[in-house]
Amino acid sequence: MVKPNLKAIVFDAYGTLFDVHSIIVLCEQLFPTRGEALSRAWRARQLEYTWLQSLMGRYEDFEQVTEAALRFACRSLHLPCEPATRAQLMDAYLHLDPFPDVRPTLEALSNFPLAILSNGSPRMLRAVVEHASLTRAFAHIISVDEVKVYKPSPRVYQLASQKLGHTPSEIGFVSANGWDAGGGKAFGFQTYWLNRAQVPEEELGAGAAPDKIINTLTELPALM
Amino acid sequence: MVKPNLKAIVFDAYGTLFDVHSIIVLCEQLFPTRGEALSRAWRARQLEYTWLQSLMGRYEDFEQVTEAALRFACRSLHLPCEPATRAQLMDAYLHLDPFPDVRPTLEALSNFPLAILSNGSPRMLRAVVEHASLTRAFAHIISVDEVKVYKPSPRVYQLASQKLGHTPSEIGFVSANGWDAGGGKAFGFQTYWLNRAQVPEEELGAGAAPDKIINTLTELPALM
Repeated sequence: MVKPNLKAIVFDAYGTLFDVHSIIVLCEQLFPTRGEALSRAWRARQLEYTWLQSLMGRYEDFEQVTEAALRFACRSLHLPCEPATRAQLMDAYLHLDPFPDVRPTLEALSNFPLAILSNGSPRMLRAVVEHASLTRAFAHIISVDEVKVYKPSPRVYQLASQKLGHTPSEIGFVSANGWDAGGGKAFGFQTYWLNRAQVPEEELGAGAAPDKIINTLTELPALM
Repeated sequence: MVKPNLKAIVFDAYGTLFDVHSIIVLCEQLFPTRGEALSRAWRARQLEYTWLQSLMGRYEDFEQVTEAALRFACRSLHLPCEPATRAQLMDAYLHLDPFPDVRPTLEALSNFPLAILSNGSPRMLRAVVEHASLTRAFAHIISVDEVKVYKPSPRVYQLASQKLGHTPSEIGFVSANGWDAGGGKAFGFQTYWLNRAQVPEEELGAGAAPDKIINTLTELPALM
């Protein structure tokens, strides 16, 4: 296998580096037996709202979208969601656990400039990265907030290319979200889909299939 | 209540006039005990792909998107989906049942110019409307295919306004999809959200709440 000639590596944050479902523990404490259902409904609506708002030509930052999705998810599951409960759940989003394969992989790749490219607001990203003591691992933490549109808009991937000063094909892009990997590939990144959830490949059309599918981040250094 | 001064009424098609889950019967014959799960996974992915492709700046018509979503849904549920099975399921999409409240409502509103505004391809819309013997009820059957982007892009709603020759606020827009009603309202239509599924209202931000929420189409004539 010929290794790609990469100049920098860009990671998605939520679902890729940080486990959005690590919040299930708190959801389960607040709503016994319904924690997983709430976590999943919340995450699904959060993504849908990023897509819908972007397509409507609107933008609210990821904190607003995440809280709106939480309100909807609670109502749809008939769970009471007082402002104090919402605040507690939103705060947990600032302290998501990194997956166990994150730290060793970032260390093994430290000869590359590493970056995060995420839907998260700057405040959310700063908090979650600091909480995981990963601030020094990244040369850039890039939020879609600068372009006020969400993934998979090509304007988001273009932002990373500009910030890093490399052409798309010089950048390795790693995402556990199949649709995000598809968006990055369609834009022109060398794309690594981290299939953590062991789900089928997305069907987003010609030119959107990832270059490589991996099951854990620890496979990554040997490929670069 | 002051009645709005409407000049035309525009209906969404799938989920509003035609029951996408009427396909469950065939799904269940093909995949006993898994029919409903397949129908729901298929519909969810179909919508996601319209949003994702639009946001990526791509367009495949609704037949292609629907078939791609079917392939994904079958794989995700570990159901075999041979080309012949797929063709059978895709064909069923051309013969969806109209909801029972559709015909009497269209008759009661026949003093208005009525239109369909749908993600469906022109071929799919023609077929499903003809199958239900509703062709004569509509002055316009408008497909997003003319603008090559999906709902809730404002370009789609603008297309209806142009075709009908009325300003947005002169048009009544009826959709059972909360996010579609939100998109229509944000564009400027008088919007009626038909909450067939009895789900909570979407949280799409300021100016995107429907003007009126109804539970069946038969409530509509008295409001206009």
